[in-house]
Amino acid sequence: MLETFTTLLEWLATMAFALSGVLAAARKRMDAVGVCMVAGIAAFGGGTLRDVLLDLRPFFWVKHSSWLWGVFVCVLVAMAFLRKRHLPLTERSILIPDAVGLGLFTTVGVLTAYQHGMPFIVCVLMGVLTSAFGGVLRDVVCNDVPAAFADHQPYVVWSFVGGWLLLGLLLLGTEPWVAILLSATIITGLRLMSVKFGWTLPSWNLRE
Amino acid sequence: MLETFTTLLEWLATMAFALSGVLAAARKRMDAVGVCMVAGIAAFGGGTLRDVLLDLRPFFWVKHSSWLWGVFVCVLVAMAFLRKRHLPLTERSILIPDAVGLGLFTTVGVLTAYQHGMPFIVCVLMGVLTSAFGGVLRDVVCNDVPAAFADHQPYVVWSFVGGWLLLGLLLLGTEPWVAILLSATIITGLRLMSVKFGWTLPSWNLRE
Amino acid sequence: MLETFTTLLEWLATMAFALSGVLAAARKRMDAVGVCMVAGIAAFGGGTLRDVLLDLRPFFWVKHSSWLWGVFVCVLVAMAFLRKRHLPLTERSILIPDAVGLGLFTTVGVLTAYQHGMPFIVCVLMGVLTSAFGGVLRDVVCNDVPAAFADHQPYVVWSFVGGWLLLGLLLLGTEPWVAILLSATIITGLRLMSVKFGWTLPSWNLRE
Repeated sequence: MLETFTTLLEWLATMAFALSGVLAAARKRMDAVGVCMVAGIAAFGGGTLRDVLLDLRPFFWVKHSSWLWGVFVCVLVAMAFLRKRHLPLTERSILIPDAVGLGLFTTVGVLTAYQHGMPFIVCVLMGVLTSAFGGVLRDVVCNDVPAAFADHQPYVVWSFVGGWLLLGLLLLGTEPWVAILLSATIITGLRLMSVKFGWTLPSWNLRE
Repeated sequence: MLETFTTLLEWLATMAFALSGVLAAARKRMDAVGVCMVAGIAAFGGGTLRDVLLDLRPFFWVKHSSWLWGVFVCVLVAMAFLRKRHLPLTERSILIPDAVGLGLFTTVGVLTAYQHGMPFIVCVLMGVLTSAFGGVLRDVVCNDVPAAFADHQPYVVWSFVGGWLLLGLLLLGTEPWVAILLSATIITGLRLMSVKFGWTLPSWNLRE
Repeated sequence: MLETFTTLLEWLATMAFALSGVLAAARKRMDAVGVCMVAGIAAFGGGTLRDVLLDLRPFFWVKHSSWLWGVFVCVLVAMAFLRKRHLPLTERSILIPDAVGLGLFTTVGVLTAYQHGMPFIVCVLMGVLTSAFGGVLRDVVCNDVPAAFADHQPYVVWSFVGGWLLLGLLLLGTEPWVAILLSATIITGLRLMSVKFGWTLPSWNLRE
């Protein structure tokens, strides 16, 4: 049952990432092909980059190619039903599953690297890549400066912090599933609180 | 003789992709280094990305490094002889070999993935990557929104359709070379008809 | 002692690449996360891309993960102490270690590919990728046209020339360390002379 629950969360989060791609492509007035592609890049780009760097195959979306179909169908549905007036609502409603994805995919990334014997800092980096680089690739392909690098919101930061927390818990001998659940929840919670309370990163004060 | 013919077509198509890179770099007023690099990325980027994702080595351009020399020399020749007034003509004259490349490289991509036992949707995706992502990488490096995602012309769509056609023919037990020839021809034909008759993708109507 | 000296040079050059990322991110008003990420991409992107293409693992920064920490700490220090009035000075003072990096990483790239039996042109290309594509990826992520492709300064050109020089020396039976030292020095020297005397690449004259 725990597994079903996790799969459900992963699916929700992947859809949120894909929808963020749909919105970005819509903002750039892309055609249907572009919308599908950008959605796919946003949804699967981070994990794919991690697997390329760690030299792991098959990719998640090769092993479970039904997810490609799932994202494809949902993007078509989104294109059929989304109207301009839905955009702000859509953007707001993906905030929560996106935060869940940040937590979930960070732990997946850290764990994958940890199981392959990577150094700690590389494990944390892989958590960051998995959770945040789908969005970075999305923005690069949309010809924008990546939001994760420039919007002064704590997003990657929580992935970084949560990655270290997960490592710490694992090294302390915590049950893996407890460690994962705890750090994913904390990352998601911190991200949601950042949004709710409008926390911003201390800006780099390039003063004279 | 069939093989010589195919190699000739591949060479023509690769040159068309490289020239599209030359034109894109020229439009951005890049220097000679940039022109060569963007031409190389446009010509070899799609197949290289496919091989990285499928974890195949050696790359085409490592096995047949003479093609690197070929593209390099042709780009130098293009820089020596191309003048501003030639640009519209060049753009028009690469349309046909580019369409041939779309057909040819789609089938190469689908077939490569098929032979490595990938799921059907991944095979088709690899066909799309091989034929269209050289151009996407070219546009990303040139700091443009990828034309394949945003110009509302059916281009990737034909690659997608033709990829499924090829798979269908293979599954029906058609001789591979017949299936390849047929689907490559149909993709190329549909692309050329799209250009001739000015077909556009139904725009995503983000109306209120 | 030679090894210590080389490591020292590599460290200086990596820091120069990282600082070029810091400056690029600062110009785009990125937040602290973006500054760290772009610095890391500029410092390690070229070598990582080479290793992905040659299918080599572990990456340099996995084997010696202390370098990740080093760059991370230096970027934090840079953010703590860099002020606007320091920027022109910083840009000038990284010119020399950056030129050292151009020479050093070109030879590293060529040698790595040579040892893996790549064709000559691919070896030279890997030298170019290693030394210049960190900067290209930095500019792509910063949503700029890559400076290496468009600033009309001879930079990649010296890497290309020096790569062939290194190959030639190796084929002539020169002691590897002599060949490396000589070509790295010549590349660095040519780059510094280009800056000092303001050499520019012959512009592609797209006249009527």
